[in-house]
Amino acid sequence: MTEGAAREAARGVPAFADVEAAARRIAPQVRRTPVVTSPDIDREVGAEVAFKCENLQRAGAFKFRGASNAVLSLSDPEAAGGVCTHSSGNHGAALALAARLRSIPATVVMPAGAPRVKRRAVESFGGEVVECEPTLAAREAALRTVVGRRGGRVVHPYDDFHVIAGQGTAALELLDDPRPAPWCEPLAGPVDALFVPVGGGGLLGGSALVGAHRGRRVFGAEPAGADDAMRSLRAGRIIPVEAPDTVADGLLTSLGERNFAIIRRKVEDILTVSEDSILAAMRLLWERTKLVVEPSGAVPLAALLEHGPPPGCARIGVVVSGGNFDLDAARFPVA
Amino acid sequence: MTEGAAREAARGVPAFADVEAAARRIAPQVRRTPVVTSPDIDREVGAEVAFKCENLQRAGAFKFRGASNAVLSLSDPEAAGGVCTHSSGNHGAALALAARLRSIPATVVMPAGAPRVKRRAVESFGGEVVECEPTLAAREAALRTVVGRRGGRVVHPYDDFHVIAGQGTAALELLDDPRPAPWCEPLAGPVDALFVPVGGGGLLGGSALVGAHRGRRVFGAEPAGADDAMRSLRAGRIIPVEAPDTVADGLLTSLGERNFAIIRRKVEDILTVSEDSILAAMRLLWERTKLVVEPSGAVPLAALLEHGPPPGCARIGVVVSGGNFDLDAARFPVA
Repeated sequence: MTEGAAREAARGVPAFADVEAAARRIAPQVRRTPVVTSPDIDREVGAEVAFKCENLQRAGAFKFRGASNAVLSLSDPEAAGGVCTHSSGNHGAALALAARLRSIPATVVMPAGAPRVKRRAVESFGGEVVECEPTLAAREAALRTVVGRRGGRVVHPYDDFHVIAGQGTAALELLDDPRPAPWCEPLAGPVDALFVPVGGGGLLGGSALVGAHRGRRVFGAEPAGADDAMRSLRAGRIIPVEAPDTVADGLLTSLGERNFAIIRRKVEDILTVSEDSILAAMRLLWERTKLVVEPSGAVPLAALLEHGPPPGCARIGVVVSGGNFDLDAARFPVA
Repeated sequence: MTEGAAREAARGVPAFADVEAAARRIAPQVRRTPVVTSPDIDREVGAEVAFKCENLQRAGAFKFRGASNAVLSLSDPEAAGGVCTHSSGNHGAALALAARLRSIPATVVMPAGAPRVKRRAVESFGGEVVECEPTLAAREAALRTVVGRRGGRVVHPYDDFHVIAGQGTAALELLDDPRPAPWCEPLAGPVDALFVPVGGGGLLGGSALVGAHRGRRVFGAEPAGADDAMRSLRAGRIIPVEAPDTVADGLLTSLGERNFAIIRRKVEDILTVSEDSILAAMRLLWERTKLVVEPSGAVPLAALLEHGPPPGCARIGVVVSGGNFDLDAARFPVA
C-alpha cells in the first residue's frame, strides 16, 4: 500500500475523538435517552445491568445518531443533492428524518416485501422509497441507478466513517452519565463492561472506540443464526454471513470493513445466542421495564442470560438498540 | 343522619389536603414516574397530550400509591396483624409490596382462574394468595374467613379513604410538574384538563380532588362495555355494572360510595369508548412511546381519539394507569 493509500484508509476508520466530535455535532437534534434498571433483571443476570434506551431515540433506534452525524458532516454543496441508501430496516427511516431536518431529499432503496411498517416510517419522514428485488445485487444496482439519475451522497448503513462515529455517542452518554432515570434503582458504582448487539458493526464499532478509550471491556452479542461477527473475530478476517436465520431482523448483515478494523482491535469477545434466548430476553424487558424493545435490542441481555456476566464484571452497560417491533407480526392486538 | 354519623361520613371521603398528606407519606417509597409526549399522538388527537406513566410505577401500576398510603397510615398496633384484600388485578400485588416494605403480612383473595401472571405478582412480593370462586359473594366470604382466622386490616381496592388519597398523588405530580422527560418534546404550556380511566373510581376520585383544587377540568373514561360510571353520573346515584365485557380488565368493577361522592361533584363528564378504540389507542402508545401499556391504561387516549379533545383544551394530562399486560394472552412472543 502506498503512503497515500494508507492515509486514506486511516481516514476511513474513526477514532475516539471522532465520536466526541459527533456528539457535539448531533447534540441539537438527537434525544438524550434515559438509562433504566430493573432489580428483577439484575437478579436473573447475576449482575447489575444499565440499559441505555435507544428504543426511545428519534425514529425508534440508535441509527438516528449515525445518520444525523453523516448528514450534518456534509458541506452545503455536498448536501444539496440529498442522500440515499439501501436499508430494509431502521437506517432508512433514520436517514430520512436526518435529511428532513436539514431540508434535503432522501431516497431509500428497500427490498420488495420489507415490512410495511418500515416503509411507512421512511415515508412518514418525507423519504422516497425505491423498491428492488430482495438480493444484495439488486439493492446495489438500484442504488447506483438512483445516484446516477439524481446524484446524492450514499450513506452506508454501517460501513461509513461518520455513521460509526455517530453510533458511538450512545455508549459515550452511557459511560459518562450512567445514572439511571429518576424512577429506577440507582447503580452501586460505575459500569465495568459494555454489551452491544452486532450486525454490520456500526454500533459495536462506535461503542468499542468509546469503551476502549474509557478503559472498559467491550463485548458484542449476535444471534447464533447470524454468527458472522463471532466467526470473523476468531478467523481474523471478515467471513460474510450466509443464509442468516433469526428473529433479530436488525442483525442480518455481514460486518463492514471499517467496523471490523475497530472490532478486531478493541472488542474482547463476541457471544452468540439462541432464538429462544432472544425471545425470552425481549419478553423480560417488556415485562420488567415496560419498554417495547425489538428483538435485536434484546440480544445483549440474551447473551448475559445465556452465558452469564463476564467474571469480574459487577455492572454491565447494555445498549438497547431499538424499539421498532412489528406488532402486526405478533398478531397484536388480540381481543 | 345524626351529627356523629355525618362527621363519620365526612371522614370517609378524602379532600385535597389528604392527597397532599399522602404525597408526603408515600414519597420515600413510590417512584416519581416520568411524563412523556409524542408529536405523532398529538397530531392524531388534535391537542397536546402529556402521559403520566404509572405503568412505570412499582408493581407496574398507580395502585401502589394508594396501597402504600393505606399501609403507611396504619398505627403500629393496627399494622401488626397485617393487611388483606380481594383483588383479581393490580391492587393485590401493590398491597403485597406495600406490606412487604413495612414487614407485615398480606393476604390476597383471588378468584380461581385469575391470570397466572397476577397471582405470580402477588407471590413475588411475598403475599399469600387465597383462591375463591369467581363471584362477588364468594370473594367477600373468603375475605371474611381470612379476617376471622388471622385478623388483619382490610384495604379495599378503591372504596377507601387512604387509597383514594394515595391514588390522587399521580395527578398531583402531573399538574405540579408537567415537564416531559428529557427525551421528549416539551409542552407549550400548562395542562388544561385531566383524562383518567375509571373502574371503581379510586384513581378518578383522587385525581378529581387534585384537578378541582388546581382549577382544571377533569374527565373520566371507561369502556362502553362497563359504562356504570357514566350511567351513575347521569342518574345521580350509583348504578352497579352488570355483566361487564371489555378487554380493559382493570375497569370491570362498579363505582364505590366514597368514589362516587367525589366524582359526582368534581368530574365534568365520563366518556365511553369502544373495544376497537381501546386496542387502537393501546397500539398507538406501544408504537409511538415504546411503552408497554395495559388496555385500561389506554382508555383515556381512546376517549380522546374517539370523541376529540374537549373544546378549549389545548393540553391534556392523561394518567396511564398501568403496564401489566398479559403477554401470554397476546400469544406473544411469536417466532
